[in-house]
Amino acid sequence: MGMVRWEPGARERLQAAAMDLYISRGYEKTTAADIAQAVGLTERTFFRHFADKREVLFSGQELLEQAILEALAAAPQGAAPLDMVASALSALAAFFPVERRVHSRRRQTIISANPALQERELLKMAGLAAVVAAALRARGVSGSTATLAAESGVTVFSVAFGKWIAEGEERSFLDIQREVLGELLAMTAGAA
Amino acid sequence: MGMVRWEPGARERLQAAAMDLYISRGYEKTTAADIAQAVGLTERTFFRHFADKREVLFSGQELLEQAILEALAAAPQGAAPLDMVASALSALAAFFPVERRVHSRRRQTIISANPALQERELLKMAGLAAVVAAALRARGVSGSTATLAAESGVTVFSVAFGKWIAEGEERSFLDIQREVLGELLAMTAGAA
Repeated sequence: MGMVRWEPGARERLQAAAMDLYISRGYEKTTAADIAQAVGLTERTFFRHFADKREVLFSGQELLEQAILEALAAAPQGAAPLDMVASALSALAAFFPVERRVHSRRRQTIISANPALQERELLKMAGLAAVVAAALRARGVSGSTATLAAESGVTVFSVAFGKWIAEGEERSFLDIQREVLGELLAMTAGAA
Repeated sequence: MGMVRWEPGARERLQAAAMDLYISRGYEKTTAADIAQAVGLTERTFFRHFADKREVLFSGQELLEQAILEALAAAPQGAAPLDMVASALSALAAFFPVERRVHSRRRQTIISANPALQERELLKMAGLAAVVAAALRARGVSGSTATLAAESGVTVFSVAFGKWIAEGEERSFLDIQREVLGELLAMTAGAA
């Protein structure tokens, strides 16, 4: 059998093997070579799919950003900033169907165990908020309000995500996110 | 002259020299020895005051946390979560008198130039939000609402901080922070 350069499903298999190893052996103690070996591929193949072992956990952000930008572009003219953010949140929810819940929960377990990964995650979320804020500004929302709406959106997303991956939780991401957004509105309305 | 073990003002001089070097030479290219040498002290003295060169930029967080916790503990029984957060924000403002503005602006310049420092700053802010959320929960605020209120408080603080250090800005931190909190309330009240 000759060397097969194109491996069907290689990316998905590498990702699944990486997650297994990050949980069983620990993120720090796992190398790209370990991951490739676990699915019978070479380290070189690993690096054709991922820049490094950290990227296994953080790839795909562009797709989220694109979906957010499309939702914001589609919002009606003159919509309130937080209503635009709500549209973006609904678009995000589509990335978290029920069959992704176990994966998301495992990913969170890995990230929570490693401060460097937590910092990376926070930087990614800050990047997401900056993208949303810039898009809101492009739709005419003033500077501070755009930042406040974008950061509030990221907060709602994060809180909803934490609830969605909790053991025993069965509601959809969209339902949880709507509930959390409602809690945010109730909380701010309750201030003196 | 013998070796002086206690150096009056050593900590402040080391910090000032570090900031100068981080800006003129760059954070990456500055060592603890460089900083100590710039003020005629030994590297060993530097390490008596700071765990590493990064800590020069991040020390003092405990004082902020303590002030926040005291403000939350002093809030009246049954106060709305965001009103408690507003009290905590007022307590924070006391750490940013006008004479600190230039220092804060320089610190931000250094952090903005270095992704690793940005990640560290985000982790510190997330830690601050977690402290506030825990304190709110201890005061009887429910889980999600406590997190939403705490994260909203950190967002208001961050946006206010960005405005306060802007060139030409002359208002007090407290005034700016109140304005930003008002913008947050207006933004959430405007949602459909």
